[in-house]
Amino acid sequence: MNATFKAAKTSAGNFFEDFYVGLQLPHATPRTVTAGDVAHYIALYGTRFAVHSSDEFARKSGHPAAPVDDLLVFHIVFGKSVPDVSVNAVANLGYANGVFGVPVYPGDTLTATSEVVGLRQNSNGKTGTVYVRTTGHNQRGEVVLVYTRWVMVARRDPRGAPPEPAIPSLREAPDLNGLVCYLRFAPGAFDCALSGSPYLFEDYAVGERIDHVDGMTVEQACHMSATRLYQNTAKVHFNELTERSGRFGQRLVYGGHVMSVARAASYNGLANALGIAAINGGTHAGPIVAGDTVHAWSEVLDSTAVAGRDDVGALRLRTVAVKGRSADGFPYRAPGGSYDPCVVLDFDYTVWMPTRAAAGIAAV
Amino acid sequence: MNATFKAAKTSAGNFFEDFYVGLQLPHATPRTVTAGDVAHYIALYGTRFAVHSSDEFARKSGHPAAPVDDLLVFHIVFGKSVPDVSVNAVANLGYANGVFGVPVYPGDTLTATSEVVGLRQNSNGKTGTVYVRTTGHNQRGEVVLVYTRWVMVARRDPRGAPPEPAIPSLREAPDLNGLVCYLRFAPGAFDCALSGSPYLFEDYAVGERIDHVDGMTVEQACHMSATRLYQNTAKVHFNELTERSGRFGQRLVYGGHVMSVARAASYNGLANALGIAAINGGTHAGPIVAGDTVHAWSEVLDSTAVAGRDDVGALRLRTVAVKGRSADGFPYRAPGGSYDPCVVLDFDYTVWMPTRAAAGIAAV
Amino acid sequence: MNATFKAAKTSAGNFFEDFYVGLQLPHATPRTVTAGDVAHYIALYGTRFAVHSSDEFARKSGHPAAPVDDLLVFHIVFGKSVPDVSVNAVANLGYANGVFGVPVYPGDTLTATSEVVGLRQNSNGKTGTVYVRTTGHNQRGEVVLVYTRWVMVARRDPRGAPPEPAIPSLREAPDLNGLVCYLRFAPGAFDCALSGSPYLFEDYAVGERIDHVDGMTVEQACHMSATRLYQNTAKVHFNELTERSGRFGQRLVYGGHVMSVARAASYNGLANALGIAAINGGTHAGPIVAGDTVHAWSEVLDSTAVAGRDDVGALRLRTVAVKGRSADGFPYRAPGGSYDPCVVLDFDYTVWMPTRAAAGIAAV
Repeated sequence: MNATFKAAKTSAGNFFEDFYVGLQLPHATPRTVTAGDVAHYIALYGTRFAVHSSDEFARKSGHPAAPVDDLLVFHIVFGKSVPDVSVNAVANLGYANGVFGVPVYPGDTLTATSEVVGLRQNSNGKTGTVYVRTTGHNQRGEVVLVYTRWVMVARRDPRGAPPEPAIPSLREAPDLNGLVCYLRFAPGAFDCALSGSPYLFEDYAVGERIDHVDGMTVEQACHMSATRLYQNTAKVHFNELTERSGRFGQRLVYGGHVMSVARAASYNGLANALGIAAINGGTHAGPIVAGDTVHAWSEVLDSTAVAGRDDVGALRLRTVAVKGRSADGFPYRAPGGSYDPCVVLDFDYTVWMPTRAAAGIAAV
Repeated sequence: MNATFKAAKTSAGNFFEDFYVGLQLPHATPRTVTAGDVAHYIALYGTRFAVHSSDEFARKSGHPAAPVDDLLVFHIVFGKSVPDVSVNAVANLGYANGVFGVPVYPGDTLTATSEVVGLRQNSNGKTGTVYVRTTGHNQRGEVVLVYTRWVMVARRDPRGAPPEPAIPSLREAPDLNGLVCYLRFAPGAFDCALSGSPYLFEDYAVGERIDHVDGMTVEQACHMSATRLYQNTAKVHFNELTERSGRFGQRLVYGGHVMSVARAASYNGLANALGIAAINGGTHAGPIVAGDTVHAWSEVLDSTAVAGRDDVGALRLRTVAVKGRSADGFPYRAPGGSYDPCVVLDFDYTVWMPTRAAAGIAAV
Repeated sequence: MNATFKAAKTSAGNFFEDFYVGLQLPHATPRTVTAGDVAHYIALYGTRFAVHSSDEFARKSGHPAAPVDDLLVFHIVFGKSVPDVSVNAVANLGYANGVFGVPVYPGDTLTATSEVVGLRQNSNGKTGTVYVRTTGHNQRGEVVLVYTRWVMVARRDPRGAPPEPAIPSLREAPDLNGLVCYLRFAPGAFDCALSGSPYLFEDYAVGERIDHVDGMTVEQACHMSATRLYQNTAKVHFNELTERSGRFGQRLVYGGHVMSVARAASYNGLANALGIAAINGGTHAGPIVAGDTVHAWSEVLDSTAVAGRDDVGALRLRTVAVKGRSADGFPYRAPGGSYDPCVVLDFDYTVWMPTRAAAGIAAV
């Protein structure tokens, strides 16, 4: 037995000066995703996309079983990175360059690793931005998700020398023709009665805006259950005792919870989205706390045919979540360009959408 | 791409004038029920009926695995009908003529359709009652549940002409001899120690009343989780922001949540009920909001032997749920016939109950 | 049909005078544990121990699949005993002599029985202590857990004669060499990057104390969901209406919920614990209600090599949970020996911990 006392075996997490470009961070706690997680996810958000809800519908669409909701995959992969990346984060600044790989099914086991791809110390010397590229794998080593995120992290010692600034390139959106290999979508008539909407790829026009109408009030027990389900340990979500004297005077809701609330609401208007192909960008524009009610609206940013495919196209969407009011009027930015104070999420992502041909509807 | 802008792709739901007798409504979002849903259901209500809780007990009773709780099946089928039937409902008036078909097991996928079977406009011209017959099917097309419900729905335009009134016949209770084919119950000694009660079919007398004793306080997070699990999207349950200025000044609890609270409480006194054969009638007599505490009591309305079966009989029950007080004294109706203000649910249903012969007890 | 009316079919539970040494209590409602329960447990506590979280990690450790968390097994077995043992309990006094048997996997069905092993009436004549030895079995009749607990139970009639006092022997800790047969742990390199900590058996010194840092605020919906998931029916946890005028003026949190909060927190410092071998003693030193924030710390009480095994050792731990403050400074007992008022749980248990040899690290 080791007779030396260890002063502390609990991890204090990494501070800004612990990161360097190229640092590899293998994250702990592999996670088998099960039908239990899927049920819990439905209970958290009430999501109704047919392909994720029904094994039968999914099989007819070319899957072996209902795939796990893309954002549940995102949250689990994200959660693993928290202890190594963002325990000492002051703010979660953004996401970009995210693409989903092979679908995840119940029974798959997810692991995650991150690589530091950028650093820039703030002029105050107390904090700096860390850019990480996080990759989620399944048990066969296949990539299920890779994305870049950046967070503002505190320095342990504000007096140290700053590192050489290094900012990764954050391209706008991925090459969809290179991603469509990950989409499982079989030929045959897509059933719009079961999916819940007659609107297909050709029905969405660039610039079109959709009010998703339904609002959801966030409860402490709900966002905490969600965040624990994702094994995300960021203290700010769980500890009323310390947060009471913290920046917001109370527990803060995990930003990803709002992403899922907004995505579930987007069923009303975008029901036929088959899944998320890419996360092009994301900003948590404002904090959410228990008691806030979230509404969402979306804008079609782009509509792209996929080479060699007449059954599916890609819609690039901006989904905006707001608090304290409905999404009527599509609140977004003030004239000066800053976010309207009601905006809490600005999420730019790309979904696969079946075409009229896929649904057996003759072209107009 | 379709260059025409669609003003709104979100569904506003059907209004009274959109319904006509014979209208078929295939409902969206097929749903595979899993062990995850079953665990969630137990966590929501703490239900303890042995056949639904244990694969082993269920196998000894003739099932291939533990069947899904009948009310979970009801809620999932009901939830699918909400976007097409009751999004613009002013009140959920009642249920009748419900019968359960083949049992549902984890892995089964449920779909639902409704047919409009009755209509009657109210004299104010603003609302009318819509009667629908909703059927739930599994992935083999077998009926798992069919029931009639009626709701008061707003007119879009109060000035239109009323439809010809048509009221469906609402018979009192089904022919149990025709339903027993759906019951899976194997010969062999039913284990009353494992099921938790010595009381069998012969022990219940018509007119007998049972106070189920245990009370349950309803939390916002619990009823919202439940209602989302059922993919029931009725706004009144989720949106504090709008409901604050609504009829009740706050979110309203899904009436089915109270049915499940009462049914779980009924274990204490009716533990050997094998499952629900029929829903003869149901009324949500009063609203429930978070913070209310629910107690329940039951009366045996009828006790029916089943032709050709000495192992099982049918008990017709009235289970009454009350709020704000215990069920002591069996509160029900005031002398004038109206419900006591504490009554929130009046539920008339029929359960299968093993006989003494099934439990290997000699007849008295 | 039995024409005799039964006054009450609801069980009032056992009172002190109903118990006698040797009384066997077979408990109701067998329970199949599923992936749904496992997901719910993670959502309740955010627990991150790798062997319980990942089928892949568990398989590499010698399991057929991820075993069910030991405390989930404990809570389910405990819950079954409540209706027969502690419905009329005034206080849950303690646990001892607990050992875990064969691991539980999703799909296993648990049953529980208790034997009364001790009794002592209090001098006031109104209450007495009942000692029960509760055993949980799987569907093959194998023991998964056996432990002794004692509760203070009310007498129905305070005037009756007290029974002969009988106190069972409560040994301090079990023979670990006799328990290691239940541990599934395969040779091969234990992966400390995936498990989340470099600290192995040899790194822990007797007397060492670890602050687990992370705090968790308890919500009504969370503790109620947990307690219902365990099918534990003790009224004090669920009924605000009656508890408002009860001893604590509100609902009380199931003590086992706090055990799980503390155990999940202990990941931060004890991540490599493979599972619980024994529950040597446990005391709920103070009540927890919704809104309380729980922190935990642990002390290494003993460190024991296991005969014939170089891959695993046993650490005896005391994990103390506190409310209303952090665990900084390791609050425990006041000078006089009584618990510090912040202490809510004093839990003495033994975990299996891999050695450096198991992780492929050469001995120092």
